[in-house]
Amino acid sequence: MAEIGASEFDTATAMTGSVEEHRVGHFAGELVDGWDIGGNANGGYLLALAVRAMTTASGRPHPITVTAHYLAPGRPGPVTVTTEIVKSGKRFCTVTGSLVGVDGREIIRVLGTFGDVRAGAGEREFVTAEPFHVAPFDECVPRTANSTTVTVGLNDRLDVRIDPSTVAPIEGPRSGEAEFRGWFAFADRRPSDPLALMLAADAFPPAVFHLDLRPGWVPTLEMTVHVRDVAAPGPLRCRFRTRHVTNGLFEEDGEVWDSAGRLVALSRQMALVARAE
Amino acid sequence: MAEIGASEFDTATAMTGSVEEHRVGHFAGELVDGWDIGGNANGGYLLALAVRAMTTASGRPHPITVTAHYLAPGRPGPVTVTTEIVKSGKRFCTVTGSLVGVDGREIIRVLGTFGDVRAGAGEREFVTAEPFHVAPFDECVPRTANSTTVTVGLNDRLDVRIDPSTVAPIEGPRSGEAEFRGWFAFADRRPSDPLALMLAADAFPPAVFHLDLRPGWVPTLEMTVHVRDVAAPGPLRCRFRTRHVTNGLFEEDGEVWDSAGRLVALSRQMALVARAE
Repeated sequence: MAEIGASEFDTATAMTGSVEEHRVGHFAGELVDGWDIGGNANGGYLLALAVRAMTTASGRPHPITVTAHYLAPGRPGPVTVTTEIVKSGKRFCTVTGSLVGVDGREIIRVLGTFGDVRAGAGEREFVTAEPFHVAPFDECVPRTANSTTVTVGLNDRLDVRIDPSTVAPIEGPRSGEAEFRGWFAFADRRPSDPLALMLAADAFPPAVFHLDLRPGWVPTLEMTVHVRDVAAPGPLRCRFRTRHVTNGLFEEDGEVWDSAGRLVALSRQMALVARAE
Repeated sequence: MAEIGASEFDTATAMTGSVEEHRVGHFAGELVDGWDIGGNANGGYLLALAVRAMTTASGRPHPITVTAHYLAPGRPGPVTVTTEIVKSGKRFCTVTGSLVGVDGREIIRVLGTFGDVRAGAGEREFVTAEPFHVAPFDECVPRTANSTTVTVGLNDRLDVRIDPSTVAPIEGPRSGEAEFRGWFAFADRRPSDPLALMLAADAFPPAVFHLDLRPGWVPTLEMTVHVRDVAAPGPLRCRFRTRHVTNGLFEEDGEVWDSAGRLVALSRQMALVARAE
């Protein structure tokens, strides 16, 4: 089992740099090949790269709420993250991050607030969400079994399992229920800390693969991840759903729970349906 | 009935300015008294102020997805919005906005993508969301009837009605169901364009007023609004829910539908439970 700090995810998100004068920080790292879908870096991996630098810039332990707008595809090679501290308060620190590729193009712009997600752990809790069923890890099927015709490098880094009842077949009729349920884990069994939740939020195939839409790439415009707790050990229980595909746009809502039955992240994307040629 | 461009909301969000060199824009306006809750400007009003300037800067008709991080309370007086165009693409334009008050303090930082929300109107649609029931407008009760001991200036600007089954009484036991359903309209009956959806997303009392939490102010850390359509005329059907209050944090999820039965906005906030004294 890989440890936090010594895993392929840690290497792939390593960032060197610091905050300099005027609250601006400069960080450098490498967009590592193999965290991709058909050659484009996964959106959760891109967010993790930026958030790792932003977390360092903030001086706080965890991302609490982060939003990325996706501007250009991420290709392997050196990247930089420029950070700006917007406000450094007692409990939280708000930071912007700009991830730029080797060709000078900005890949994502991020706005986030950082802090200690367990700082309010003594407060009274109320949870009315209904839990959702996922078949046991070993009875779920690997993501590779799912609807796609492109090479998913991410499948070698992660061990994402999909509940058999929500698998989208590569051929044949679509179910019409835009939902994936399953488990998220790293292939090397690195524990899922809050940074890993950036990846978990975007590690499943798009739920719209269950709909009879034009096939093809569904680009993410924006993704927001709320970190709600530090996960207990073990695979993360996940559900991703789309309820509204309108005007060529759709949301994908994610819930990520840990093995102790606690919510650890909520995510929402806005994405575009595949374009006509 | 007030018209778009000639209503108190339009006056209260008027912004003078333009984009200058290096993709940076400078706008000036007024944070108008009376759009407040207990003296602090409503979060949706603050977002509308920034988004109005950002929409102009983008050169596009509508906000599509915008995220605000709340940094300081908004008090009446002159404000500025500094915008930066992050990327101007064919279909969308991504812009940042910084709303600063008369004392020089930054009130909110916003990141958003702008475009024509109906550009993909010819695409195939799929909606699996279950509609939610709201009693007819005239059978709903004004927001003023709801749980609060502070003066809500916003109540004079808006005509927010709450379904009787979801009213939170000012005294007595809480229902434990953190949900408000009701209608959003302007008091002067200005139509609700996409800019108005910024306000609709934050116009109801916090859904956590239904829970037996420590009473008091529940500050918003972050709010994201997805604009999904241009609303048909008439009051907007709204639902706001909180399902997880954990670690002193909670989400509030909003859905806003128009009179034609179409989704016009999805919103999500992350907020903090009231602090112990």
